[in-house]
This record gives sequence, C-alpha cells and structure tokens, in this order.
Amino acid sequence: MKSAKPKVMHEVAGLSMLGHVIKAMRGAGVDRIVVVTHKLGDAVRTYAASLGAESVIQDPQLGTGHAAACAASALADFPGTLIIAYGDMPLVTADTFTRSFEAQAQYGMSIVAFTPADPGAYGRMIRDSEGLLERIVEFKDANADEKAVRLCNAGIMAADAKQFFGWAGKLDNNNAQKEYYLTDVPALARKDGVRCLIVESDEAEMMGVNSRIELARAENLMQQRLRAKALGDAVGLIAPETVHFCHDTVLEADCLIEPYVVFGPGVTVRSGAHIRAFSHLEGAVVSGGAIVGPYARLRPGTMVEENVHIGNFVELKNTKIEKGAKANHLTYLGDARVGAGANIGCGTITCNYDGFLKHHTDIGAGAFIGSDTSLVAPVSVGDGAITGAGSVITRDVPANSLAVTRAEQKNLPEWAESFRARKKAEKAAKK
Amino acid sequence: MKSAKPKVMHEVAGLSMLGHVIKAMRGAGVDRIVVVTHKLGDAVRTYAASLGAESVIQDPQLGTGHAAACAASALADFPGTLIIAYGDMPLVTADTFTRSFEAQAQYGMSIVAFTPADPGAYGRMIRDSEGLLERIVEFKDANADEKAVRLCNAGIMAADAKQFFGWAGKLDNNNAQKEYYLTDVPALARKDGVRCLIVESDEAEMMGVNSRIELARAENLMQQRLRAKALGDAVGLIAPETVHFCHDTVLEADCLIEPYVVFGPGVTVRSGAHIRAFSHLEGAVVSGGAIVGPYARLRPGTMVEENVHIGNFVELKNTKIEKGAKANHLTYLGDARVGAGANIGCGTITCNYDGFLKHHTDIGAGAFIGSDTSLVAPVSVGDGAITGAGSVITRDVPANSLAVTRAEQKNLPEWAESFRARKKAEKAAKK
Amino acid sequence: MKSAKPKVMHEVAGLSMLGHVIKAMRGAGVDRIVVVTHKLGDAVRTYAASLGAESVIQDPQLGTGHAAACAASALADFPGTLIIAYGDMPLVTADTFTRSFEAQAQYGMSIVAFTPADPGAYGRMIRDSEGLLERIVEFKDANADEKAVRLCNAGIMAADAKQFFGWAGKLDNNNAQKEYYLTDVPALARKDGVRCLIVESDEAEMMGVNSRIELARAENLMQQRLRAKALGDAVGLIAPETVHFCHDTVLEADCLIEPYVVFGPGVTVRSGAHIRAFSHLEGAVVSGGAIVGPYARLRPGTMVEENVHIGNFVELKNTKIEKGAKANHLTYLGDARVGAGANIGCGTITCNYDGFLKHHTDIGAGAFIGSDTSLVAPVSVGDGAITGAGSVITRDVPANSLAVTRAEQKNLPEWAESFRARKKAEKAAKK
Repeated sequence: MKSAKPKVMHEVAGLSMLGHVIKAMRGAGVDRIVVVTHKLGDAVRTYAASLGAESVIQDPQLGTGHAAACAASALADFPGTLIIAYGDMPLVTADTFTRSFEAQAQYGMSIVAFTPADPGAYGRMIRDSEGLLERIVEFKDANADEKAVRLCNAGIMAADAKQFFGWAGKLDNNNAQKEYYLTDVPALARKDGVRCLIVESDEAEMMGVNSRIELARAENLMQQRLRAKALGDAVGLIAPETVHFCHDTVLEADCLIEPYVVFGPGVTVRSGAHIRAFSHLEGAVVSGGAIVGPYARLRPGTMVEENVHIGNFVELKNTKIEKGAKANHLTYLGDARVGAGANIGCGTITCNYDGFLKHHTDIGAGAFIGSDTSLVAPVSVGDGAITGAGSVITRDVPANSLAVTRAEQKNLPEWAESFRARKKAEKAAKK
Repeated sequence: MKSAKPKVMHEVAGLSMLGHVIKAMRGAGVDRIVVVTHKLGDAVRTYAASLGAESVIQDPQLGTGHAAACAASALADFPGTLIIAYGDMPLVTADTFTRSFEAQAQYGMSIVAFTPADPGAYGRMIRDSEGLLERIVEFKDANADEKAVRLCNAGIMAADAKQFFGWAGKLDNNNAQKEYYLTDVPALARKDGVRCLIVESDEAEMMGVNSRIELARAENLMQQRLRAKALGDAVGLIAPETVHFCHDTVLEADCLIEPYVVFGPGVTVRSGAHIRAFSHLEGAVVSGGAIVGPYARLRPGTMVEENVHIGNFVELKNTKIEKGAKANHLTYLGDARVGAGANIGCGTITCNYDGFLKHHTDIGAGAFIGSDTSLVAPVSVGDGAITGAGSVITRDVPANSLAVTRAEQKNLPEWAESFRARKKAEKAAKK
Repeated sequence: MKSAKPKVMHEVAGLSMLGHVIKAMRGAGVDRIVVVTHKLGDAVRTYAASLGAESVIQDPQLGTGHAAACAASALADFPGTLIIAYGDMPLVTADTFTRSFEAQAQYGMSIVAFTPADPGAYGRMIRDSEGLLERIVEFKDANADEKAVRLCNAGIMAADAKQFFGWAGKLDNNNAQKEYYLTDVPALARKDGVRCLIVESDEAEMMGVNSRIELARAENLMQQRLRAKALGDAVGLIAPETVHFCHDTVLEADCLIEPYVVFGPGVTVRSGAHIRAFSHLEGAVVSGGAIVGPYARLRPGTMVEENVHIGNFVELKNTKIEKGAKANHLTYLGDARVGAGANIGCGTITCNYDGFLKHHTDIGAGAFIGSDTSLVAPVSVGDGAITGAGSVITRDVPANSLAVTRAEQKNLPEWAESFRARKKAEKAAKK
C-alpha cells in the first residue's frame, strides 16, 4: 500500500479491513479473536485491543501455517472450534463464517473456496469422490488437470482448536519458499481421518486487498452491497450510486436520501426523515419529519428530533435540536441544546471554545435567535427569549426577554461619494 | 415501496411517476385525463387535481379491465379516442402516445408492445397473419410456442372511448384470479371487427416501478436521457454523469455546468452562464455571463442577471440580483433585490424573517455592503451607499451615504497573557 | 460544439484540447510548435502564444495537406524533424510522439495508426510486404479488401521538415472534395524512397472530439487515466470515480482523498495530508498532517502548512496558513497570513476588498480570533493576541493584547412577549 498505516488498518466503508473481518466473526458468534501480527505491528495490536481482540506476534514470519500456529500460545487449550481468516478480506460476511462453523460441526473440518473468473495462481481445491476436499494443490505444483480446476482456496479454515494446533505443529517447510503452509493442514487432517467440507463463497466476498486499486475496488463492492441492502430495506435513495455509506449506517425504511450524501460512522436516519443533497453526517441521529440539508454537516453527538429543519451551510456538533426547531442557514451550533420550536437565525454562532475548554450553550424552547448572533458559552437563552440581530450574548438571557448588544446606526450623507473619489485616486496612484 | 407515500407519487427526476405519465399524455395532445385510484387514494386524487386531472375511485379493485371500466363514469360519453396507461411508468414518452393515437386512427385500436431482454411472465403478443394483434396470452396460459414469443404487452391501449367502454362492460372474470383483465379487450374488439395495430416501444421506456430498486433504476435511466439530451443541445457538461437533473431543467446551448451540480424544479440556465461545482439550484434563472458557485444554493424565486457573480456558501431565495452585481462569500439574501453592480460583502445577511412575517430588503445599484452586515428587513440601502463592516442596518440608508453601527475598538495590552494563565489553571483544575 | 469558444479551446481535465496536444509534444521534446488556425482564429492564436506556441493562418482552408503546408511560412527552413497532429486529440500522450520520432529517425518517416472497434469511415493503412506503410486509402476510395483492413490512420505524421514541405508542395486536389490531403504525403515520400513506419496507438488515445458528447467522453477517459495513475502512485482514493482531477494535479503517495473532491489547476497535496469530502481546491498546496474539509474551498495562492486544520464552509484565497493553525468553520480568509498555531474562530472574515483595492491581513502566531470577527484590512493582529467575539478590527492589535468592539448587552424583560403579541396581530391583519 506504500502507506504509513499498516495494510489491515486501511478502511473500507469507514471500518478497517481487520475490523470488517472481526465484525463478521463476531456476527457468526466468535467469542475470542486472536490477531497474528508482525513484530513491528504495535499499531495493529493496539487497534485490535480497542476492538476487544487479543494479539500474538509472529517473529520470524515463516509462512501462513506458521502464522496460524503462533496463535497456539493464546489458544492451545481453547476447548472449541477455531476459524482462521486473513485480515485483508474486508468483504467477508458473518454468513460465510457461520456456514464454515456448520460445515465443521458436521464433518470435523471445513474450508472456504470460490470460483474466480480468472483462477490465476490460486491454490486449487481437489475434491474426493464424495465431493469433500482431498487436498489443496498450490498452483506452481499443479499439473494440467489440476490447473483446469476452477475452484480455488480462499484461505478460511474451521477446525477443532486442539486438533488444529496438533496438525499445525506437524507442518513442514519442504518447499521452494521454505515456508510452513496453512494449505497443507487439510491433508494432515485427512490422515487423521478428519474430513473437510468445502464451503463455497463468491469471488467478490473473498477478494483480498494488496494495493490501492484493490482497496478502491473493495470499497466500491462494499458500497454496492450497502446500497442494495438499503434499497431492499425500502430506503428512498434517489441516486444510490452517489450516496457513500459507512459500514454501520442505519437507514430506516421510507427515509429519503438525496444525491451526494456522505455518511461517516454512527449515523441513524429514521423513517420519514429527509436528507438533502451534499450533506455530510457522522455520529448523528435524525428523527422522522426532520429535513436536513442541502449542505448540512452533522458531527458526532448530534441529535435531530422530529420535524426539525437544518438548512444549508449549517454545522452541528454535540448538539441536540429539539422538536420542530429550525436552523436554516450559515450557522454553527456546538455543545448546545436548542429547545423545541426555537428559531436559530442565519449566521448564529455558538462560541463554545475559549482556546482551552469547550462550554455549553442552552437555548430555550420557542426562543428566537436573531441573525448573526454570537453566543459566548457558557450561556443560556431562556424559553421564548429573543436576541437582536448582530448581538454578542455573553450573559444569560431570561425567558421571554430581548437581549441586544448594538451600537446606534449612523448614516453619514455623501460619505460614500467622497470615499470613492479618494479610493479611485489611490488606485490610480498605485498603477 | 413500503412508504407512507402512494407509489405513483414517488418521484423520478423531481416529478412523480404519475406526473410523468400525465406530462407525456399532454405532450401527445390529451385533453382530459382521468386517474383511477384506490378508495383510500385521497392523496393521489388531490395531487391529480393539482395537475388538472380528474379522478375516479375503483372500489372494490377487480382487475385492470375493471379499473379502466371505472373511468366510464367520467368518460362514457367522451366523443373521442381514449388512451389507457399505468401510472407507474415514469419513462413513457409523448412520442409513444402519439404513435399510439396515430395507429388507432388508422386501424381502430392500438396497443404498445416491447421486447424485453427477459420476457419473464409478461403477457405475450400473438400476431395474426397481417402482423396485427390477434390476442394477448397471459404467461400462465401460454403454451411453449406462445412463451417463445418475445414481444410483450406494455399495457398501453388506444381505442374509441365509446367502443372501449362497450368492450370493457363485456369482460368476464372467468380466470384463476377472478379478475377482469384489460388484456382481454383486444379479442373482444376483434370480434367486433376492430383490428389492433401493435406499436413497438423499448424496454427502458416501458419499465414499471414496483420497488425502490426499480425506482432507482428508473431515475438512472431518466437521468441518462436528460444528460444525453443536454449534450445533444450543446450544453457544456464536463462530467454529465455527475449532474443531477430535474425533469424540467432548461439548459441553453453553450452554458457550462461543472461536476456535482443538482437541479431541482424550475431552473433555467442561459447560454454563456457558468454553474460551478457543488451548486444546488431550484426555481432559478441564471443569465448569460453569470458565474454561480461553487457551493452556491439558489432557491425558488431567484433571478440572476447577466454577468452576476455568486460565490461559495451563498444562498439566494426569492431574490433578484441585477446585472454585474457580486455576492461572493458566505451570504444569505432572501426576499431581496440587489441593484446592478452592487457588491455584497462576505457574511452579509438579510434578516428577512421576524418570526412571523417575511420582509423585503432593497439594495441599490452600485451599493457596497460591508462584510458581516446584517440588514434587518424591511429596509433599503440606496444607490451607491456603503455599509460599514459588522453593521446591523435597521433604518434605511440614503443613496451615497455611509451607514455604520460600531462600538469603538479597545485594545487591552497584556490581557491575552493573563487570560491564558487563568484558563490554563482552570483547565488543569478540571482534570 | 455550437459554442462561442473555438473547439480546440474546450477543456479536458482543466486544460484545453490544444493545450493537451502541446503539452504532450513538449513532453516528447518538441521545441517549436506552430498552430495552424482559421483566419478568424484570433482567440486561438492569442491562446497559443500564451502557451509559447507560434501560429499561422490557413486562408482559404483547402484541406489537411494544405493546412500542414501553411506551416511552411514558419518552418520551411527548420533543420530538424517535424511532427504533425490535430488539435482536437486531447488524450494523445508524449509517449506516442516519442515513439513517432524514434520511428522517423529509423525509417525517415512515421505515421500513427490505431485499430478502432468500429473502423467506420477512417482511412485504412495499407502495409507493404515488410509491414511498412504503402499508402493510406480513404474509405470512400477503398475496395472491399481494403475496407476489411482494421488498422486506421490517426493523422499523426513525423518527417524531416524540409522533405515534408517538399512533398506538401506537390500535393494535388484531384479528388471529389477538391482538397489537398495530408494522407497523400506518404505515397509521395515513398516515390522519393522515404519509407514510413507505422506506430500503433490505441483508440482511446487517438480519439478526436467533434461534439459535446465526445468531449464528455474524452473527459471521462482522461479522468480514468488520472485516477488510475494516482492509485498506482499509492494515493489514497476512497472512491476514485468521485474525484475530479485537473490535468496537473499532484497527489503524493499516502495522502488521503475522500469522495467528492474537485481539483482545479495547480494543486499539490503532500503525503500525509487528508482532503475530506466535498472539498474544492485550485492553486493550492496542502502539506502533510493537514486536514482540509469537508466543504473547504482553497482558491489560488493558498498554502496550507503541516498539521493545519481547515474545516467546513471555509474559503481561503491567496493566504498562507502556518503550521498547526486552525480555521474550522464558516470563515473567509483572503490575502492573509495566519501564524503558526493560531485559532481562527467561526465566522471570521477578512474584509480584504474596499471596492477598489485588495489589502493584506496578518495574524500572528498563537493568536486567537474570536468568533464572528471582521478584520478590516490592511490590519495586523500580533502574536498571541485575542479578539473578542463579534469584533470589527480596524486598527492593528499588539501582541498578547485583547481587542474588542462591543456594545453592552441589554436584557429587556418581557419584551419578547409583547413583541410576539404585536406581531401576531400584524400577521392576522395581513390575512
């Protein structure tokens, strides 16, 4: 990837590739997850821990079978079934892991295979007469008949943990690469009388990511999947191909999403909500009847209640907008509460940061914040209060009061004409 | 559709599916339109009326033939030709209706057919030896030869109104569904010696919409159609696939539209105008030589005259910007007129709403509105007048005057240092 | 093109078609470039001169061979190799020109050919027994065998300048169009014993643009090329198909570009920089560690240093933001410098234009510009100084000072209630 970031931490739909694999595993009921990392993989280990996964170090790196064997230090006595997968397969689903477990439960072992359009150099899955896996032939060792097999190894294997580590301990590295291959495990299992059922999956789901081009392709496939799911859930997507999802975006049936909307993590849009074009949402809940955008940015901690209107060039952060309130233009509300039915005028700014700490702004129900009002937090505006246009509110405003800071308007007749004459001369002099 | 909104009111390119069918019919010269609705279809009936269409209720719902027969209450004595179409075919064109009428005029009856890539369960069109329609065979009643026919019924039928209602009255429901089928009408007509010419259309135009996925597909096809038409009209579309049209968008030859522009209803962009990226226009006219965007939002009632510049994060609503005026940054102008050549500074806000009523702002030709000026409407700024930066203008400004509201600037030496010391202590104490 | 703009000046990826051809020629080491123009082509000639190219007028226009011959007035004595290309081939690469020169050097002449999916009416390349060009047959003169040839003439020819003008002078117009054809040159050369090697290129690169549809297609192909190159360079493009490049966009490895970003001319994004969604950049440099957007607009002359944050609805023009400074919301900075670590509050505006001249704003390191501050340029805010929210700064602020312009806040109890009562009555009276 030519990146400062470890490969498996590159994101697809807002979640790292490793995170996708872990999420799919948890979706299949996996309790303990052990990530095998490079000795320099501190960032991956810290990240894995943040996802509740353990990690072990593989040092030196002696092949895929050796990598899996490294997990023995954590899992050798694990009394259940183990499933092994690569960390760079962001499209893998819980369903495939579930089917792998089911197959393992039935036969003792299972392995996932797929039929790529171009089998290329993938290992070929050689079936026995019953259709079970006989062995995996590496492409470079395959004869012409074996190369003609289109079913390929995807690298996901389920087995009894104790048995697996037994086989892994018996692997040898008698091959050109001098590596211990995970693909040799099924043959060892078969010698022990453990048969391996092949679980078929599709090429897109099994794709591995090894370059920016493949990462972009994985993102595109994941977006297609998320869009199709949303349409199937009766979400109104006018131009689904223009909506960029996050892996965890929750869109309820019969909400409406216009073109060019980007979802970051942690967004829920409820039935009846309407997200307009060019909006950007992260960590936000939008309730039914609310209209958001165009050009609205909702940042983490935003709660938009029913029938609220959030308009253009408006940014909300860590802010709750209660029922029916409106903030329609050119506004920043951060660390705030806006009471039900309040009207936030154009150009309203919560001055929530003093350079050191963030402070709260509280705006009461039915309040009317005049245009271009700056609210210097911590500050509160009472229910039904009004602030005059252009005010800088530094002290609390009682309910139903008017608060205003304004110098008197002076009109200086003819001033503009003389100003222009002066400026014209200045400009001419500059040339 | 799993939606609170009736299916035919879901929109494609900003117009309901029903609206598209009605628009295409009117384009083919249809005078009277009768929409057959469900008994609970109040919303559809109200909407149909808003489009100048009549409506009748079908209750109970006994099939397509019965639905068409329901229109008899409105049209039984109609002295002309009738055309029947479904309300969920948003891509149907006036041309297809025109060809249907022409075919009807020639033969007494016509019906539209198409050749889908996958004929699936569509009714098959069985031709007689002259190529006219002999009968329509429902898929479930078709034999193997009939199923092999690829020409399918699209459900658009033209006939003499009086004759049609005669046939519709004779339909029976001797079928598995116990429904009265519109597709049985041609056979009845043939018994009366009225022959039916098949009018061929294409699959995309004939698509019906029964899910969100199909709605999204219809939108995509319509957008492709609108984009191709614009390119054919010599509109400059840098990346046509990124421009989202409304069904009624008018783009004149040699205007230039950058990527990521969204058009809502009622927009006209004239030759020589330039719409920059990320702009959003509804109900607006943009004249030649004008430059709009990026990130400009024009809302209904906006008139942008020749050579005007509207810049980023600028919202206009019900506002006329006269020749050569400029509003380049972070501005909201609502219910306003801006005179020719005026310069609207960054951060200008028309405070057009007092919580109860909207008021007008008038800015004269050649005026210079200083940055961060709030104009509390109703208010006027005369020709050539200037407002000082940061002013809140509540009283009219005479022509060529300067208006300013400003407290004196105070510089407090060393204040920032002691403030920072205090805040640092505060922050430390919080930890 | 039905355009006020000459065809070859229409742009692909932000550079005119003519500019692309000239750029590719220069990339192949071409020193002197002569553009043959229509007699009314003043705009093209002025533009060509701005790119350092000469131009000649072809008047009357007597065919492609005549057009090339017109360059003799500028190049007849040119002592080197000449290459001829059309000005409407925006996808042509320096590599193709380089290969043309190499082939010419080897054989005396070369000509570029391609194999279109649909050879249509292109001239066919007839090879001799050695695979060299025997002659070019115009489609209308071709017999069935010749029409079956799929290799077509692309119109790029390299030859010794003196020889070329000799042949061009011998062309005749004994054909239906009464035109002098460039395609007759190779046969004349062959008579003089100069052989012509065919250089093969691909159809996309050789496409000519004669309509808006073709222009849009060329743009799309160029964008695909630029996106593929960026991915190959290890640029992080989450959704490459949504990023619109300019021909000269420089993205370093391991920068990250979110969906919906538009690049105008002259942008460099360095490794480790992060451009968020819906951003628009022109003439800007973004350094490592900087985060820009969403909805940031960087205009020409913007320099964003390391670890700077530029947030939503922020416009920068001719402005340098030094290390670690932040401008996160709703801000316009024009003709300014922002010192390292400064914090620019929401709603900050540099009032850089007085209607006649632009003026500079200087903000010192570590300064804190309070929200909604207007800085009336020319003005400077010293290192570590603070401005109060809502201030209009017209005089310089010394380092570490607080500057504020503010009227006292007045709270008028009960005022809002009586205001609402009055307005309700007013609104009712209007009805």
